[in-house]
Formats: sequence, C-alpha cells, structure tokens
Amino acid sequence: MGKNILLTIAYDGSVFHGWQRQPGEFTVQGHLEQTMSRLFKQEITLSGTSRTDAGVHALDQKATLVTDINVPTEKLPLVINNALCGEEKGPFAKAPVRILSAREMPEDFHARFDCKGKKYIYKIRSGCDSNGELGDLETGLSLVFDRNYCYHVSESLDAKAMAEAAQYLIGTHDFKSFEASGGNPRETTVRTIFEAKVLEGTAREGSGNGTQDIEIHISGDGFLYNMVRIITGTLIEIGQGKREPADVKRIIEAKDRQEAGFTAPPNGLYLAEVYYE
Amino acid sequence: MGKNILLTIAYDGSVFHGWQRQPGEFTVQGHLEQTMSRLFKQEITLSGTSRTDAGVHALDQKATLVTDINVPTEKLPLVINNALCGEEKGPFAKAPVRILSAREMPEDFHARFDCKGKKYIYKIRSGCDSNGELGDLETGLSLVFDRNYCYHVSESLDAKAMAEAAQYLIGTHDFKSFEASGGNPRETTVRTIFEAKVLEGTAREGSGNGTQDIEIHISGDGFLYNMVRIITGTLIEIGQGKREPADVKRIIEAKDRQEAGFTAPPNGLYLAEVYYE
Repeated sequence: MGKNILLTIAYDGSVFHGWQRQPGEFTVQGHLEQTMSRLFKQEITLSGTSRTDAGVHALDQKATLVTDINVPTEKLPLVINNALCGEEKGPFAKAPVRILSAREMPEDFHARFDCKGKKYIYKIRSGCDSNGELGDLETGLSLVFDRNYCYHVSESLDAKAMAEAAQYLIGTHDFKSFEASGGNPRETTVRTIFEAKVLEGTAREGSGNGTQDIEIHISGDGFLYNMVRIITGTLIEIGQGKREPADVKRIIEAKDRQEAGFTAPPNGLYLAEVYYE
Repeated sequence: MGKNILLTIAYDGSVFHGWQRQPGEFTVQGHLEQTMSRLFKQEITLSGTSRTDAGVHALDQKATLVTDINVPTEKLPLVINNALCGEEKGPFAKAPVRILSAREMPEDFHARFDCKGKKYIYKIRSGCDSNGELGDLETGLSLVFDRNYCYHVSESLDAKAMAEAAQYLIGTHDFKSFEASGGNPRETTVRTIFEAKVLEGTAREGSGNGTQDIEIHISGDGFLYNMVRIITGTLIEIGQGKREPADVKRIIEAKDRQEAGFTAPPNGLYLAEVYYE
C-alpha cells in the first residue's frame, strides 16, 4: 500500500469548469490528476471533499491521493506547484490552482467521508451603479477587475437585517427549501449550521462612494446542492427590503424551494474551510 | 463629418494580448473595434492613447472614434458595454473591458497627440514566501487570486529607500537608461516626470503575516518603451538593498540600459490616468 496523502488546494474557480473531472472540460480535479500523473509517471486519482461548481473558488479544498511515489510528503506542494506552473519558472510563476500543503494521513482516512463540516464565504459588492455614464467610475472598475470574484448588486443592502435573518439558519433544520434540484443523491435534507454571519467591510480601494463589501460566512456539517447560493439570494432579498428577516424561519418550515430566494451566482462563492476531527 | 468621441476605457490586461490590434490575437483595440463595428453596422476604428503591452491593465485608457452613428453620446457606454457582455444579460454582466464614459470632443482633438501626460501605478506584494509548505497560507492564496494583478516578491522591501530613490526621477531627464529596445520610433529620450511616489499599503485581506502591498505611482509627460517597468525593477532592487537610492541619479546620467535594473513583469502595471489640457 502507498501513502495516503491529504492535499490542501486553492483555486480561482473562474478558470475552471468546476472541481469534478469531466471529459472535454477543464476542471480542477482533471487538471491536477493529469499534471500529477505526468509528473509522477503513474496514474494519480484524487478524492476531493467538495464538488464545487463552475466559477466557485476554493481557499481550502481538500483531496486525498494514495500513492507510492518517492517524494517526501512535505516537498509535494513545491514539486506539484512547479508542474502546475508549466512553462513558467521561478517561485512566483503563475497558476490558477496551487497546493498549499500536503500531509500524510492514516490509511483509512477519506477526504470526503471523514469531513465533519465546511465553511463557505460569499462576497457581495453592493450599492453599485452600472448605468455606464460618467460618475460611477468605482463600479465600472470593480466590474472589470472583480467580475469573477464577487457578486455586484445595485442596491445598498441592509446588512443588519441580513445578519438578523442569518441567525434563523443556525442549528439543525430541514433545509429542503434551500436545495436546488440536480444534486447528488442524499439520505436527508437535514443539516446543522454552526455559524452564519454577515460582515460589512470596506470596499477594496478607491471606495467609499456608496459601494460596500458584504461577506456572508456560513459553516455547517454539510450543505445541500446550491444551498449557500440560495441562502445568499434569500439574504440579499432581505437586505433589499423585499422580505423580512423572520421570513427565513417560515421558509425553512415550508420545505419548498419556491419559498426561498434566487440562487446567487457562483462567482461570489468561496469554499473557505474544511473541518476534520 | 461625424462626431469625434472620446472614450474612457478600463480593462483587465490579463485577458488580452495588449491594446494594439494584431491579426490573430485577442487585443483590446481589436475586440472593441470588432464589437462596435458589428453593433453599429459600420467599420469602427479607434485611435488609442497608449499601446499597453500584453498583461498590462488600464483604469483610464482613452481612445477616440469618428462616427456618424445615431446614438446619443451619453448612451454609448451602456450600449457598447451591453454588446461587450455578449450573451450575458443584466447590468452586472461580465466583460473584461468596459467603457467608463464617452464625451464629444472638437473635430481636431486626437487621443494620443493631444495627451499631455499619463500616470501609471505598479502594484507589488512583497514579503511572500512561496516554498509551498505549510505556514504561508497567505502567500499561497495571493499567488492564486492576485496572480494577474500584482507582482509577488519574496523579500520584505525597504519602501522608504524606494521612495527616496524615486525622488531622483522627478523633473526633466534623459531616460535612455530606462528604455527597452523594440519600442516605437521617438524623437528624443528626454521626458519630464511630474510625480514619483512609493506608497506602503496594507495587504488586501487576511494580511499582516509579513506580506506588504507597495504601490509605485508615477506620472509624466510621456514614457519610453517599458520605462515604468524598468523603473520598477530598479526600485525593487533598491528596496532589496542591492543598490543605493542615489544610484538612480547615476543610472540616469549613464544613459545606458545596462546600468538600470530588471524589467518588472507586466501583471503589476496599470495605466491609471491620461491627462489632457
């Protein structure tokens, strides 16, 4: 038997057609497996924790591989990252996916089945005016440079109302209302949310002219298909004043996708942390 | 005669093979001309202020077009941006280049010949540890998400020394030492630098563990080929302690490219402002 190695992986989701290997698509898993198979001259198969969708980013994806390659585990990130940078050379050569760390695990450890929970962050830039005329230079620049890294909303959102609404998510509930169709088979739609926070930040630079950065931080023992994006869409509608914070309680009880808000787009979503024992 | 319209344009240079139209390459000028020609059903030719290289960004590129199209000038940004977003719909649809404003100018106005000066910003992330092992998560994430938007340097740079060095650039000098070969023909290598500042910022997020954001702001009446990138490379070497701040004076006097520092890569460079009367 080879070593069972747990990799921590970060990627810019805008470059990939999601995590999962698919014929004819440039995916994170496919790209990593191909690069590593070529590098180590053996077929490498990764077992990832979370199947992120196209456009979704990862700050802390986890995946295991079982291998007998003769490279010290602590050297693996450097060696794999060099291969991922391809023709580019030097310590800061560019790649849209990188290995942040590698760690040897017990033989029976599994990246997905042993996962005790995950944290996601959703980034919103609110108060954006995109009418394209002189005056809102800030939005115009953000639309160019942040287009793949946050979700732009025209209204100034009421972050306090969103934070209040998020409190109703915490705990163990049936989240059927926040599940999109098309996901993987699951035994139950009950999940436990550990934390759900709405943070108001200052927009990156040249900011202050009305735009605002809002981050939704949510952690739990597991998430249904598109759950964080539907929660985000619902919280945005609450921030817009279209719904009341207490609606979240009613939506959960309804167990009906139609009751919840829209599905926020993938580009604002980051897989931020994966928890093990 | 049609209207002479001045456009303000922002773009993410990582997506384009530079500004200038070239057969078989995806360039900003080529993409804009093609999109606008299709949109307005007539051949559109842009006359841009600055021929930015591949990978270089623009916050404030300018270009004129002469046209008789029957669209109010103030509506042009919206109409063109919609076309640039292609299949995507909605005010925040994504495009790597956008028109920030449009303004009608006198018939004899020319975006390049009437330009009185430009400002560039160069963004550096210093103190980065890329050994790929556990411990410098921050650099790993920055290498993924900022790879196209700043230049990563491993050393902690002495920004004060860089700022001192930058002072020697201000004024009217022969900048031959800071010119790369391969540029366009020019009458003289004498240029006037109005401002040269080195700003220390705080790194974007999750920062503080040793990395630092440094911006070089430089404005002048004109710049030679790769001049800002060679100035940046020289200032970085001063920040690393490999050269003294006063070396800049000596380098200018030498009028010899060999005396100056390396050419910093394009991904940290932003055309930040274009000045007219």
